[in-house]
Amino acid sequence: MFNNDDLSSLRWSERESWTEVIDQTLLPHALVWAPLETLADYCHAIASMQVRGAPLIGITAAFGLARAMAEDPSDENLRRARATLLATRPTAVNLGWSLQQVADAVAVLPPAQRAAAALEKARALRAADVASCEQIGEQGLPLLRARAKGGRLNVMTHCNAGWLAAVKWGTALAPVYKAHAAGLDVHVWVSETRPRNQGTNLTGWELQRAGVPFTVVVDSSCGSLLRNGQVDCVIVGSDRTAANGDVCNKVGTYLKALAARAAGVPFYVALPASTVDWHCATGDDIPIEERGASEVLSIAGLDNASNLRHVSLAAAETTAYNPSFDITPAELVTGLVTEHGVFSASCEGLEPLKNVTGPV
Amino acid sequence: MFNNDDLSSLRWSERESWTEVIDQTLLPHALVWAPLETLADYCHAIASMQVRGAPLIGITAAFGLARAMAEDPSDENLRRARATLLATRPTAVNLGWSLQQVADAVAVLPPAQRAAAALEKARALRAADVASCEQIGEQGLPLLRARAKGGRLNVMTHCNAGWLAAVKWGTALAPVYKAHAAGLDVHVWVSETRPRNQGTNLTGWELQRAGVPFTVVVDSSCGSLLRNGQVDCVIVGSDRTAANGDVCNKVGTYLKALAARAAGVPFYVALPASTVDWHCATGDDIPIEERGASEVLSIAGLDNASNLRHVSLAAAETTAYNPSFDITPAELVTGLVTEHGVFSASCEGLEPLKNVTGPV
Repeated sequence: MFNNDDLSSLRWSERESWTEVIDQTLLPHALVWAPLETLADYCHAIASMQVRGAPLIGITAAFGLARAMAEDPSDENLRRARATLLATRPTAVNLGWSLQQVADAVAVLPPAQRAAAALEKARALRAADVASCEQIGEQGLPLLRARAKGGRLNVMTHCNAGWLAAVKWGTALAPVYKAHAAGLDVHVWVSETRPRNQGTNLTGWELQRAGVPFTVVVDSSCGSLLRNGQVDCVIVGSDRTAANGDVCNKVGTYLKALAARAAGVPFYVALPASTVDWHCATGDDIPIEERGASEVLSIAGLDNASNLRHVSLAAAETTAYNPSFDITPAELVTGLVTEHGVFSASCEGLEPLKNVTGPV
Repeated sequence: MFNNDDLSSLRWSERESWTEVIDQTLLPHALVWAPLETLADYCHAIASMQVRGAPLIGITAAFGLARAMAEDPSDENLRRARATLLATRPTAVNLGWSLQQVADAVAVLPPAQRAAAALEKARALRAADVASCEQIGEQGLPLLRARAKGGRLNVMTHCNAGWLAAVKWGTALAPVYKAHAAGLDVHVWVSETRPRNQGTNLTGWELQRAGVPFTVVVDSSCGSLLRNGQVDCVIVGSDRTAANGDVCNKVGTYLKALAARAAGVPFYVALPASTVDWHCATGDDIPIEERGASEVLSIAGLDNASNLRHVSLAAAETTAYNPSFDITPAELVTGLVTEHGVFSASCEGLEPLKNVTGPV
C-alpha cells in the first residue's frame, strides 16, 4: 500500500520537470490530473481547492515557489511569489511553514542556484511528508488496536484527512490504513462534511479505492451514532493546532468532539508536527476562513445522463454564512497523534514536541 | 399574521368537501397545492413527506380517516384505514394520537353517522392545533424577550417546526413569529438540516414569506456559532417526547443541545402536549425511523434553466446510513414550551402537564 505513485495526490516528473495534481473538485465523479505549469496555476490549484488538506497545500506551495524561482530567481520575485502563494488560503499553517522552508533554503544562495535548490527542497518536503504520514499511521495504530476488542472496529472521521489531503497515507486515515493492512476489521463512518462534502467525495472515494469498508452519514447523524455506542474511536486531522492543544479543523469537528466526550469515546487528532503553530497561544489566535455562500446554497452532482450539474438548493435571495473551520478546545482532545509520538493536548503535553521541532 | 388561510399548510373546503396540502417536497422551488381525494392520497402525502412535522402529520391523518369513513363507514374499514394511516411513518406520536381521537369519536356511532362525525372531529383537531400553536407562541415569547438584551436577538433552530410543520404558526417558530410581531429585532440561524434540507427548503422559505431575517448555515456550523456567542437561544420542535422529558426530534438536534449546554445558551423544545408520549418512559422507547440511503447520496435543486433536477452526490456503490431522528436527553433541555405553559424536562417537571392532559 502506498509503495507506488498510484495512491498519491501530487506527482512530479524529474525528466520533464512538471508537477501535476489530482483535481479534487471533480472527485468522486472524475479522476483528472491537472498540470501545474505557472505560478498562477499553483495559486489557482490551492485557492480553488483542486488541492486541499493542510499537508498537501504546503507541498503544493513549495513546488509553486520552486516554479517561480525557475521563472525568475530574483529577491524581488522570491518575496512576491511567496506572498502570492501565502495569500491563497488563510487557515492551514503548513502553507506558511512550507514556504518558509523553501525560502530559507534559497535566500542565502546566488540567484543562479535558486531554481535547482528550491526544487530540491520541495522534493525533500514531499518525501518528508510521506514519511511523516506513514509514521503517524504507525503511532496511531496501537490506539486503534486498543479499541478493537476483537470485533469490528468502528472509526469515525470528518472531512478528508487521507492521502488526498497529504501526498500519501494521510493523517487521520493513516492509522486506519495501517489497521486495515494489519488485518483489523476496520469500518469507517464517513461524515459527509457539508458544504463541500469532502467526506463523501474524497474520503469515501479513497477508502473505496483502498478496499476499506465505510458508510457515509450526514454530519448531523454523528451525535446519535456516538451516543448509541456505534463508534469506537473518532480520529480527525487538523489545519492548525495552537500551542495549548486547541485544534482548528473543518467546521463540524467541534460537535463531534463534544459528542465523543459525552459518550466516553476517544477523540484523536492526527497531524504532522508542522501543523502546530507555536505562535498561536490558543485557538482564538487562529484565523477562520469564511468562504462564499454559494457553497452552502448550491451543489454539484451527476444527473441521470452522468453529466456534472450545479443545482441551486435554496430560494432566491437566501443569505448564508459559511465559516469553513472551527476550534475544538484542547480539553476535548484525547491525544494528538504526530510522527514523533502521541502527545496530550496542552501546553505541558506539547512541550516535548516543541523541543523536537522548535518553534519556526 | 396567520389570520387568514394564506399562511396555512392544509386547507379544507366546506362547500366542496376537499382537503389540499402544500406539497412540501417541491419547496422552495415551487408552491403547489396537492389535492387529497382518496385514502391512498393521504397515505402517500404522509409517507412521501408532502406533509411532515408532527402536528401536521396528525391533522392530515385525521382528515384521511374522515375521508375513509365517507367511502366506507364500516367497523372493518375504520380498523383498516386507521392501521394503514398509522403505518405511514413510525416516529411522530401525533399520528397515532390524532387517529385515536377520530376513532374514539366515531366508533360509538352507527355507521351512517360516522362520516360527518369524523370530518367534524378532524376539523376540530385542526382548529385546536392552530390554537395550541398560537399559545405555544405566547408561552415562548417571554423566554425570547428575556434573551433579547436590547439588541438583535439571534435564535437558532433546526429542521422545520414552523407553520409548514403544523397548520398555522408552528411550534418552535411560533414564539419567533410572536417576537417579530411584537417588534423585537429577531434573526434566525437556520440550520440546513441534511439530508432533506428542511431548514433551507422550508424554514427559510416560510421565514422569507413572513419577513423575518434569517441566515442559512450548514448543520456543522452550529457548534462554532454557539461557542462564539452568536446565538442567544436555541428552540426546536419535537416529534415525540418521553415521559421523562427526553426529546426525539430531527437528527442533529442532539448535537445542538450539547453545544448549547457547553456555551451556556438556553435550549428550548416547543411542542403541543399531544407530542408527549406518556407510554414512553424514556427516549430509548421511541422508535427511530431509518430512511433510504438515496436521501443522503442524492439531492434535488434547480439547474441554470430553473428545471428541478436530481443529482447524484457520491461515487457508485457508496453505502449510506440514514437515521432520521435522534434523542436529546432531558438534562440538556432548558424547558419544554407547550400550550399549557413551560415545563422542566423531567418526570416531576411534566407531572402538572400529565394532570392537564392525562395519558392517552
